[in-house]
Amino acid sequence: MSEGKALRVAMIGYQFMGKAHSHAFRDVSFYFPNLRPVTLQVLVGRQEERVRQAAARYGFAEVASDWREIVERDDIDIVDIVTPNHLHREIAIAALRAGKHVLCEKPLALSLEEAVEMEMEAKKALGINMICHNYRFAPAVQLAKQWLQEGRLGKIYHIRAQYLQDWMISPDHPMEWRLQKQLAGSGALGDIGSHIIDLARFLVGEIDDVTAVMKTFIQERPFMVENEQDVTGKVDVDDAAAFLAKFLDGALGVFEATRFATGNRNGNRFEINGEKGSLRWDLEDMNRLYAYFVDDPADCQGFRQIQCTESVHPYLQAYWPPGHIIGYEHTFINLFATFLMAIERREQGIDYRNLPSPNFTDGLYNQRVMAAVERSAENGKWEKVMGSAI
Amino acid sequence: MSEGKALRVAMIGYQFMGKAHSHAFRDVSFYFPNLRPVTLQVLVGRQEERVRQAAARYGFAEVASDWREIVERDDIDIVDIVTPNHLHREIAIAALRAGKHVLCEKPLALSLEEAVEMEMEAKKALGINMICHNYRFAPAVQLAKQWLQEGRLGKIYHIRAQYLQDWMISPDHPMEWRLQKQLAGSGALGDIGSHIIDLARFLVGEIDDVTAVMKTFIQERPFMVENEQDVTGKVDVDDAAAFLAKFLDGALGVFEATRFATGNRNGNRFEINGEKGSLRWDLEDMNRLYAYFVDDPADCQGFRQIQCTESVHPYLQAYWPPGHIIGYEHTFINLFATFLMAIERREQGIDYRNLPSPNFTDGLYNQRVMAAVERSAENGKWEKVMGSAI
Amino acid sequence: MSEGKALRVAMIGYQFMGKAHSHAFRDVSFYFPNLRPVTLQVLVGRQEERVRQAAARYGFAEVASDWREIVERDDIDIVDIVTPNHLHREIAIAALRAGKHVLCEKPLALSLEEAVEMEMEAKKALGINMICHNYRFAPAVQLAKQWLQEGRLGKIYHIRAQYLQDWMISPDHPMEWRLQKQLAGSGALGDIGSHIIDLARFLVGEIDDVTAVMKTFIQERPFMVENEQDVTGKVDVDDAAAFLAKFLDGALGVFEATRFATGNRNGNRFEINGEKGSLRWDLEDMNRLYAYFVDDPADCQGFRQIQCTESVHPYLQAYWPPGHIIGYEHTFINLFATFLMAIERREQGIDYRNLPSPNFTDGLYNQRVMAAVERSAENGKWEKVMGSAI
Amino acid sequence: MSEGKALRVAMIGYQFMGKAHSHAFRDVSFYFPNLRPVTLQVLVGRQEERVRQAAARYGFAEVASDWREIVERDDIDIVDIVTPNHLHREIAIAALRAGKHVLCEKPLALSLEEAVEMEMEAKKALGINMICHNYRFAPAVQLAKQWLQEGRLGKIYHIRAQYLQDWMISPDHPMEWRLQKQLAGSGALGDIGSHIIDLARFLVGEIDDVTAVMKTFIQERPFMVENEQDVTGKVDVDDAAAFLAKFLDGALGVFEATRFATGNRNGNRFEINGEKGSLRWDLEDMNRLYAYFVDDPADCQGFRQIQCTESVHPYLQAYWPPGHIIGYEHTFINLFATFLMAIERREQGIDYRNLPSPNFTDGLYNQRVMAAVERSAENGKWEKVMGSAI
Repeated sequence: MSEGKALRVAMIGYQFMGKAHSHAFRDVSFYFPNLRPVTLQVLVGRQEERVRQAAARYGFAEVASDWREIVERDDIDIVDIVTPNHLHREIAIAALRAGKHVLCEKPLALSLEEAVEMEMEAKKALGINMICHNYRFAPAVQLAKQWLQEGRLGKIYHIRAQYLQDWMISPDHPMEWRLQKQLAGSGALGDIGSHIIDLARFLVGEIDDVTAVMKTFIQERPFMVENEQDVTGKVDVDDAAAFLAKFLDGALGVFEATRFATGNRNGNRFEINGEKGSLRWDLEDMNRLYAYFVDDPADCQGFRQIQCTESVHPYLQAYWPPGHIIGYEHTFINLFATFLMAIERREQGIDYRNLPSPNFTDGLYNQRVMAAVERSAENGKWEKVMGSAI
Repeated sequence: MSEGKALRVAMIGYQFMGKAHSHAFRDVSFYFPNLRPVTLQVLVGRQEERVRQAAARYGFAEVASDWREIVERDDIDIVDIVTPNHLHREIAIAALRAGKHVLCEKPLALSLEEAVEMEMEAKKALGINMICHNYRFAPAVQLAKQWLQEGRLGKIYHIRAQYLQDWMISPDHPMEWRLQKQLAGSGALGDIGSHIIDLARFLVGEIDDVTAVMKTFIQERPFMVENEQDVTGKVDVDDAAAFLAKFLDGALGVFEATRFATGNRNGNRFEINGEKGSLRWDLEDMNRLYAYFVDDPADCQGFRQIQCTESVHPYLQAYWPPGHIIGYEHTFINLFATFLMAIERREQGIDYRNLPSPNFTDGLYNQRVMAAVERSAENGKWEKVMGSAI
Repeated sequence: MSEGKALRVAMIGYQFMGKAHSHAFRDVSFYFPNLRPVTLQVLVGRQEERVRQAAARYGFAEVASDWREIVERDDIDIVDIVTPNHLHREIAIAALRAGKHVLCEKPLALSLEEAVEMEMEAKKALGINMICHNYRFAPAVQLAKQWLQEGRLGKIYHIRAQYLQDWMISPDHPMEWRLQKQLAGSGALGDIGSHIIDLARFLVGEIDDVTAVMKTFIQERPFMVENEQDVTGKVDVDDAAAFLAKFLDGALGVFEATRFATGNRNGNRFEINGEKGSLRWDLEDMNRLYAYFVDDPADCQGFRQIQCTESVHPYLQAYWPPGHIIGYEHTFINLFATFLMAIERREQGIDYRNLPSPNFTDGLYNQRVMAAVERSAENGKWEKVMGSAI
Repeated sequence: MSEGKALRVAMIGYQFMGKAHSHAFRDVSFYFPNLRPVTLQVLVGRQEERVRQAAARYGFAEVASDWREIVERDDIDIVDIVTPNHLHREIAIAALRAGKHVLCEKPLALSLEEAVEMEMEAKKALGINMICHNYRFAPAVQLAKQWLQEGRLGKIYHIRAQYLQDWMISPDHPMEWRLQKQLAGSGALGDIGSHIIDLARFLVGEIDDVTAVMKTFIQERPFMVENEQDVTGKVDVDDAAAFLAKFLDGALGVFEATRFATGNRNGNRFEINGEKGSLRWDLEDMNRLYAYFVDDPADCQGFRQIQCTESVHPYLQAYWPPGHIIGYEHTFINLFATFLMAIERREQGIDYRNLPSPNFTDGLYNQRVMAAVERSAENGKWEKVMGSAI
């Protein structure tokens, strides 16, 4: 058990991601007992009664309604931002300037402009910052990363990545914040497309150039207004986004993010093909990595199904014996362990310059790709990821 | 959040199952916030330093070395038994007599005699008792149970169930307690066979008659004695057990539990065939239930792969949106939620006579099947499950 | 192309197997052009009009109604027996005595007594004989055999094999010959159980001892009598048979053959576990072999899915480039190629003593296993495969 | 059996496709006995000895070296073109003008110009014409088509289709004709991309607009010249092509064809998402269709695995009982049955105006898509499929 003083967390927001994050904070010390302990100090939100309920359930000591006060409090070490996207910028910058360690949900910002500003602040900040692309932290994905870094796949030719969902296929699904550009920035692109962009950057490298299409299949939806069910609004974000990509190192990418892939609840998948082998992964079956190696004997070549639950697999020593699977929430626990480890190293003066990944710079690069996708979807041309004026 | 006073837990034992149970106690209130809160009060074990470390990691307030004192303490509500099997009987009976709520790891006992005694005590006890056949509590298995109860599969013809592992295939694997009859009772049969017997009883019903084979492939193994690596012992439990079963309701069962199924880390699988449909499940892919219905139109009949992560699926409202999988540990959380719910109902005088399942009576019935398997493996004949003198 | 004179075939019977066999005879020379060509000479059956139609479709030059005349004709080289089981013995013996090469469908006989007689005749005969356990000839199964022979799985611990079908689950399915003991010998056991026994003998070795259960779920069924739909008969064969087996070399076997496994059309499956690895195969996905090797590095162990369509795989050079699958009918084509090759070698005086497998001796050994299964299902005891008086 | 006079076939070319086609001609009458019989009359090729060997193996009555003479012979009914792509145009036009029924391998032509010319000739011709996009004729694909036509998937939102191969990943793979633009027209795009374009057009409808990338990963390869292994050539076709597509009816398409997807031997796959359901198919597992329907009850929604081997499935009555799979070659047999049926109907004056699909018009539309892909890959813009001057 770590002897260190507990790190106190203020969390801004309390919905789906609030639940995932507070759970991860509670569990991380159990599975990674050598890390600094964590205290859930303040939960911040505007609807007092709801915040109070959430705080009781999640285990926060206090509640508050004004995030500005909270992020400056001396007794707060970590600011965790799980609000709708349009609030990320302001909160993150305030927290960074206050010297806090900052966790921010993805996508980093509403726009490339915002992301640039946030990343500049992050570069100057004393605290650790990370962005919650949690799927990197599935052990199978970490294993893929190890092998790619070691060159076990050789030169990479292809990545095809999809994030397929279907929870909005009903025209009756209401105009929630994720369907409004001013609150969400974009639709499927930012919400789920950003995850596969992050995985591709993590595993294959930087994208140079994209051509894209974005589409809104259902353009008008009802607002959730009591007693006024016929008030509808215009959906101004994408239901689906697809793009072709050229990577700096020569690989080709094919990407697709959609909320209209009927039957796919959470189909975050990729396949990577290299000269020496290939890898496949699927979030709905997230404990398995499928791997093919060209060096296998000619009569027994084939994708092998690797249950990534061995003690030799990344992060697995924290959990259970072989064959006992972990789930969605453990991707957060692993990410948070990485975050806490980085805080500890920084506070000990080790790795002073290094940040764990993915951090705000990754968020910015991701946003650059998304911005290029949006420009291309607009103008019909290939767009350089670094081609923006910003 | 429940307003009730916290239930205080004493846990006897602290290895693999100690970790799983203490985690579940910590998490259950987060996911099921309406249940009575739980406090991890005392962790009991004989090796003081190790117990202390475990208690710190798991979050117990105290440690102790003598379980006899602890199970009688007034401030203990729940006694959780995660020791090697040979200690179950004595501790459970003491805890039951002391009026505690008792959770006991499986198999219930070393022998049918012990199980009979334990169940008699449980019947007389005031507290709730359960046995930790946690795999019943995978949402996919609960869904299977619902459908079977509703008759959606009609009359059942077949169950074939396997629990396949391979962690002992190396002859160098040491003579741990699970390989010694006096500590474990049996080998693969009690350790993993008991799980598939429980699933079969839960889903299909009572077994009437069995014929069995048990086998020890590696009969001599090294003890883990420092500086004396050549001390070996004779394995006196089964490496593998298989049996045919006739169910009271006419179904046929084929069962196999083995630690020598190379490549299978945790292959707990079943297929059930009924006149109206079939079901398949596999622990390594535990979020999915595969279901076939004869009433589907002729041109689109086939096993459907149901990702049991919808809010309509059992226990799922406690967790995440559709498509976000849960893992091994959640089977314990669900079992523990059921246990806590039963305690609450009993303390409120509701359901006074009813016990949740699986309880010590299930443990006894399970042991009867195992005893019949052992008798049959010994004498080569079909043995009635209720055919024992006891 | 082979320069040899065409081998002339007389086929007795013309239903499902008649179609499969005549197709294989037609195709075998196309895929294996170096073999002796084959002529479909006479098709024999009792219902003249139907035989004539079948002969036209299958491409036979003549039809006949009396097999006795045909099997003695000088211009017939091969007698192919695809009748219901009760006719196998008489026809096969006549054909063997007449010096013909004989192909016989499985199971070899109605009873062990018949099988013993047939095998004795086969031993004395000049011609080649084979029994049509065609599933041995799936390339994936042949590959499994190669590896097992080379010792790539080490000592074998387990085989579990199932043949699961569901085409008789309706109580309205009529009393066809396969449901009558005097015509079929047995039910699921002989019809599909014999296939998995054959695969187990081929891959793992001889079975020493069995304990079994056989069951008839639907005991009365309608006859197909025109204008008399209410005539029913008693089913006197098994709908399902299951047995445990001890192999001579120490492996344990678990076998199940049933026509009541709803949703399984043709689920002929096995898994073999050895000390160095494991194999899985499924007829419904017959081009793939799944293989696990313990020697794989610790971080990338897993069953690999081998698409057995490479030119290095058994029989595949006859067919298509990698990734182009073959189907059910090719198992017959491969078997027939083996049969024709053996005829050629025998006629050239090569391999004079050797017979290809599976032959009538395999059929007899298979029948011994089935007889032991039937005895055990009757008397409830373990029965030695070689334990019969015969 | 059909009473009609046999249709006599002249086949031009004799490699891989020559084998597939001649086998299909041999087998089609066996499985579809009511069709006109077929005689393999003349095999045409330039290398006399090889043609003679192939003719003997495939069963052709004659050989010839000059296709011009042959396509005009009165005793030839069907001209089947299986040459490298650069010969399609000249032979097809001659055969069409000679009034023959014409089968042509895909892609139809080297260029859009050629395709336009060929299609115009086909429109004027008396004979039936088809192009061999055989994968349409997998029963699972035909079943998908039926359901799409019946509207069982509702409005279509997405198709993602891949054709992934890896047989050229070695830099030592020689400069065969498929790697030379003047002989092949294009690389992966025409060879395998044309197949997924055909499937998409068949199942979803016409493509309006595309943006594309094409890439040659290995740009120089050795020629197969005896004694001169160091002669290399420049690969001037694509190793991989990917494109985004907008369909006329509003669906989005994502397409990828590559010879560099290591581990994928023949990965021709698609997924289609509609408002009422989704479908998945994979050539390597071609007997199965995976289908999801939104109308399934909430607790049992999931992709069902439909083994398309039931008698109610398209073309299946010709083959085997449920659960007995067919293979790659049967896609040709089904296509050829369709072709022969169309010939019969035309000769009987039925359906005089109708042609079976896919025919030369389909080939032309396919070529328009490929031409747009090539233009877009060249100029970086979205290109209208009908936007060419031609």
